[in-house]
Formats: sequence, structure tokens, C-alpha cells
Amino acid sequence: MKKDWFEKELEKYSKLSGYKKPEKYSNVIKLDSNENYAISQEFIEKVINTAKENMDVREYPLGGTEKLVQNISKYIGMPKEMIGVGNGSDQIIDLFLSNFTSKDTKILTSDPTFGFFEERCKLYSIPTIKIPFDKNMTLNLEKFLSNSKKANILYLDTPNNPTGFQFQKKDLERLIREFKGLVIIDEAYVEFSDYSIVEMTKKVNNLIVLRTLSKSFGLAGLRIGYFIANEKIIDIFTRIIQYPYPLNTLAIEAGVIALQQSKHFTDVANLVKTERSRIITNLQQMKIFEVFDSKANFVLFATGGSGQRIYKALIEQGISIKNLGKIGSHEGCLRVTIGSQEMNSRFLTAIRDLLN
Amino acid sequence: MKKDWFEKELEKYSKLSGYKKPEKYSNVIKLDSNENYAISQEFIEKVINTAKENMDVREYPLGGTEKLVQNISKYIGMPKEMIGVGNGSDQIIDLFLSNFTSKDTKILTSDPTFGFFEERCKLYSIPTIKIPFDKNMTLNLEKFLSNSKKANILYLDTPNNPTGFQFQKKDLERLIREFKGLVIIDEAYVEFSDYSIVEMTKKVNNLIVLRTLSKSFGLAGLRIGYFIANEKIIDIFTRIIQYPYPLNTLAIEAGVIALQQSKHFTDVANLVKTERSRIITNLQQMKIFEVFDSKANFVLFATGGSGQRIYKALIEQGISIKNLGKIGSHEGCLRVTIGSQEMNSRFLTAIRDLLN
Repeated sequence: MKKDWFEKELEKYSKLSGYKKPEKYSNVIKLDSNENYAISQEFIEKVINTAKENMDVREYPLGGTEKLVQNISKYIGMPKEMIGVGNGSDQIIDLFLSNFTSKDTKILTSDPTFGFFEERCKLYSIPTIKIPFDKNMTLNLEKFLSNSKKANILYLDTPNNPTGFQFQKKDLERLIREFKGLVIIDEAYVEFSDYSIVEMTKKVNNLIVLRTLSKSFGLAGLRIGYFIANEKIIDIFTRIIQYPYPLNTLAIEAGVIALQQSKHFTDVANLVKTERSRIITNLQQMKIFEVFDSKANFVLFATGGSGQRIYKALIEQGISIKNLGKIGSHEGCLRVTIGSQEMNSRFLTAIRDLLN
Repeated sequence: MKKDWFEKELEKYSKLSGYKKPEKYSNVIKLDSNENYAISQEFIEKVINTAKENMDVREYPLGGTEKLVQNISKYIGMPKEMIGVGNGSDQIIDLFLSNFTSKDTKILTSDPTFGFFEERCKLYSIPTIKIPFDKNMTLNLEKFLSNSKKANILYLDTPNNPTGFQFQKKDLERLIREFKGLVIIDEAYVEFSDYSIVEMTKKVNNLIVLRTLSKSFGLAGLRIGYFIANEKIIDIFTRIIQYPYPLNTLAIEAGVIALQQSKHFTDVANLVKTERSRIITNLQQMKIFEVFDSKANFVLFATGGSGQRIYKALIEQGISIKNLGKIGSHEGCLRVTIGSQEMNSRFLTAIRDLLN
């Protein structure tokens, strides 16, 4: 290895673009990052205040992740030996990619998929086979099956971000069963969807199911991710691959308290689903957008050439949504997060005003 | 790549031992992890309560790390463009190792050094050249200089954990200047030591200085690490290598508030130094231990064959310290963290009782 290797490595990385965070606006209704404002600020503050009573931040959170795992276990009804945690599912993804891939590893995924995952594959120079969405923003199972043998890792976010698409359960199950490598199924938005395949981890040894408390539990700011897999994977991940203290004390304590009140969050998720229907129906009724079905806490719609104009006009009205540009053959794609009822109504009113 | 590659990789990792966390005891005086109980619980609680007012954990901490960086910049007097942050310095170490090393990279370090760093090198199969401590628990500069050319990365924690040793400043400066690769200097305990080499990052482009708020700021539970390096390294790290949201909202807000009150923490660090002298003097006066000088918030002492017995007897008296076993030719090494005055007195009394 030459002595200027470090400079050369830096130079190589400098050519990557990295994950693009949304613009930071002050005093806007923030419907750009799939955060969960359907949960009231008061409720979340109570969770934090209770959590705070149990903690001494001078100490390393010894025993903390174990306590969190126990509460996740109760919430999802899976044994605690099958659960691992991370600093957001970002960190879990990163550790699997950095430890289990190389330039010889091929990843099969959809196009588009979770942006952070894509950027991480670029960072580690992992070749990817990307199956584009069909015209109606659905995925073709046969295309995945026929590419399965060329890849070592299958990554699917289901529901998909940013489309909201989810395979039929039996189709996803078939794809997972037939894939002979590491399967990473990212269920970040599962609480807003029709089904989970988490039970398959009991039988399929090469399957990892990612979850998060950022979405349905509204704790994006606390960075709590977890995953479910067979005991051997969890044991090796937790003892050897994960850091000794990946989550901070407040994340652990607040996560535990939120999980103990999961009923409330399930009710909120149901409200989000109802609101999602309202937004889809209203956008469809405007008759100028192509609005795609969604199983997540956001809705994707294509505006033709008007995406940038609508995005900017909404910002001027104090509403920030996600501007995605072209997806497949669809121009001007925008993604709006389902927020509180009031936020959603203000979004719909603003859009209507724009069209008049 | 063969289809059973994932199982084989898992098998390979399963043979590693991983980082050993300390035992979790309840109701003990915890002097085993270099946490900072010299800072009062009341003071830390005030920091947390103020931090809590500024946060909405439903949101991703957009703009948060930038705010933290600005406050670190004021505290250390270095430009914000030269500062990066991470989820504990553990995460910063991990990202540099996973992105800038391979089996062809050789690391030069001391034996012993920070346990997490050693475990990470094993995880990534990075060969290390380890220079053992001398008989008086100091390091030999010449041995480092003569091995410099064989290595690509130099890692030194200074002060060293677990010995408390720190090179003379001019010696460390010389070693850094002569090393032609990536230099990682871990200054986790710098606030308790005689000097920092952070200013060298302005001139030396291959130097990274790691810091943390876990030690002198007493925020181990919040997992806040940072590092100082030239602008190009920081830019590439922050935009491309680091995750979009590596720190959670409370860590960011509490870190900012603690940094704004750095005077208080400096006073506490001075108290810790005074207490360190008291502990060293008292242990020396017992005339049966070899007590080593320390520039950190802990003291290492060798007990001959009595390490395990003293460790266990202290646990029975409700005091947990770190049992390190043999270091170099020294048997029965124990490391005690400097806690509050009361904790330190109880430790000294307990040791004295044991000897009578």
C-alpha cells in the first residue's frame, strides 16, 4: 500500500454525492420527511418526561439495549433472542453492508428505493441491479425472480419509499423463499401497511427484517432502529458487530415507554391510513395528477411538468413536501407525508388554491 | 461469490470475542468505566431539563449536528470547518476503519490501548503492530519511530487507557510529524491531561484528533463524539461517510448546553486532577501496590497476585472497579476511576480495610 493511499481514498470518496437531506425551513408545515405529526406533541412530551425520570446520563447505558429489546419483543410478539437494535435502521443497514459486502457482492433492489441505502452501496462500491417500477408504479415479480440468481443480497423496502408500493404478500414470500443469499426486508412503514413478513424469520435463516420507531412511533429524532432475524445472526451482530453502546440513554428509555403504550400508536396509525385515503381521493378528484396507491404514511403523485412549480409555490405557502423529479416515465413526482388532520387539510387547500 | 457466502461470513465473525462490557451490578459505586461522577447529578439534570425544552423528537434532527459543531468550535477554539461529530467517538473510529482500511492496511498502536479500537481492528481483519508498555508503564518513542515505516495508520490514545500514560508533548509531536500515513490521536481524556496536540491539525493534513463529551462533560449516556481534522477530511466525512442523522435530538441539545457551560466542567476536571493525586498518594502509601502516574480520570495499579481477590472483595463492599489482569510483566492490574470526593474516599477506605 503506497504512502499516499489515504489522500487517494479521500479523493475517491470526494466524487460521491452523499445523501441529500431536505432543505431546512423555519415555520413550515413539514411534510417532506415522513415524520409522524399525527401523534400529538403533548403525548410525545409525556413520553420524554417519563423517560427522563429513569436516567442518569453520566453513565454508559449498560443493560439498556437489553431492556429495549425485551419491550420490542413484547410489542411484535417475537422472541428477544431474534431482535437486534441500532442507532436508527440506518446504522443497522450500514453495519451489514460494511461487514458483509465487497466489490464482488451484487445487490438486487428496486429503482427507486430508500435513498440512504443507495448512497451506502455507492460508498462501499457495491454493484447493484435495480429493477425499475412499472408504468403504474408497481413492481414486477417476474423481473425480480429472473434476476435473483445474479445477486447475493436482496434489499426491498416494503412498503417502498418513495412510491408507497407493497407486493402482494404471497408474491413477496415467494421471492424471499427463492432468493439464495442475504435478504434484507425494510419494514420501516409496516404499521401503515397491510401485512408484515416478520414471521418468516422463524423459518428463513438468511432473512433480516428491519424496523424503526421513527415512523409509526413518531420518534425520528431519537434514532431507534431494530431488526428481526434468526438467533445466530442476532447473537453475532449484538456481541461482535454492533458497538457496545449504540443507543443513547434517552432513546432507550423513551423507546421503552413508547412501546409500553403501543395501543395509542396503533390508533394513530389507523388515523393516518384514513387520512391517506382522504388525501389520495382529494388529489385524484383534482383530475390533473397521477396519484399512486400507498401503503405507507405518505402519498406519491406525478404532476407532469409542474413538479418544481408546485413544490416552490407550496413552500411559499409554508408547506414543505418532497420534490423527487422524474421517476421512471413519470415527470414531476412529489411526495407528501400524511401529517395531522389539520396539516393535511392545509396541504389540500394549498394545492387547490394553486390550481385555481 | 458462492451462495453460502453469508453463512461463511457469519461463521468467521462468530469466532471473535467482541468488546467486553463491564458486569452490571445494582447499587454499587461505579468506578469501572471512567464515567464522571465528580459532576453532580443535579447539574446534569439541569442540563437535560433545559435541553428538553428545545426539542421535538418527532422530527429528524435537521440542522442539529451543525449547531453542535458551532458550539464545539467555540469551546475548543478551532474553526467549525475542521470539526466532525459522531455517535460517540466509537462511531467515528468505526467509520474511519470500515472506509479507509483493508487487510493490506497495517496499524501501529500501543499494547494495551482502547479496547473498542482493538476489537474493531479484529472485526475488519486489520493487522496491527503493537508496541508494549515498558516496565514502568511508559512508552518508548524510539520503538514507535522505528516501526513507523511499516504501518499505514498510527492510533494512539493519549492519555492512554488503561494506563493513564501520555508522551512528552515534543515526543508525540515528533512521532506525528514523522508518520507518513493516517494518524488518529484519541484525546478522550485530554481535559484531565497536561496538553493537547489539536493545533497540529492546522498544519498536518493526515492527522485526526478524536474527542468526546463522555468524560470531562460527564455525558457518557448521550454518546457524543467529535473530531478535529483538516477541512477536506471533515467535508468528505460529513457529507459522504457519516450518516445524515448520527446523533439524536437530546444528545445535540444537551451537548450544546453543556458546551455553553464549559467553565463548570473545567472546574470539575481540576477537582478530578486533585483527587487523582490524593488517590495515587494514598495507594502508594499502602506500600504494597505498584501505582502508575496518570494524566486521565483513572489510576492504574498493579497488585501482584491479588488482583482478582481485591476486585471481588471491593464488589462485596459495593464498589466496582476494572479488573485488567496482567499488563506487560505486571500481574493483577486494577484500574479505578476518579469519582466524586465521597466515592473516592469510600474506595480508599475499602482498600485499607482489605489490607488490615
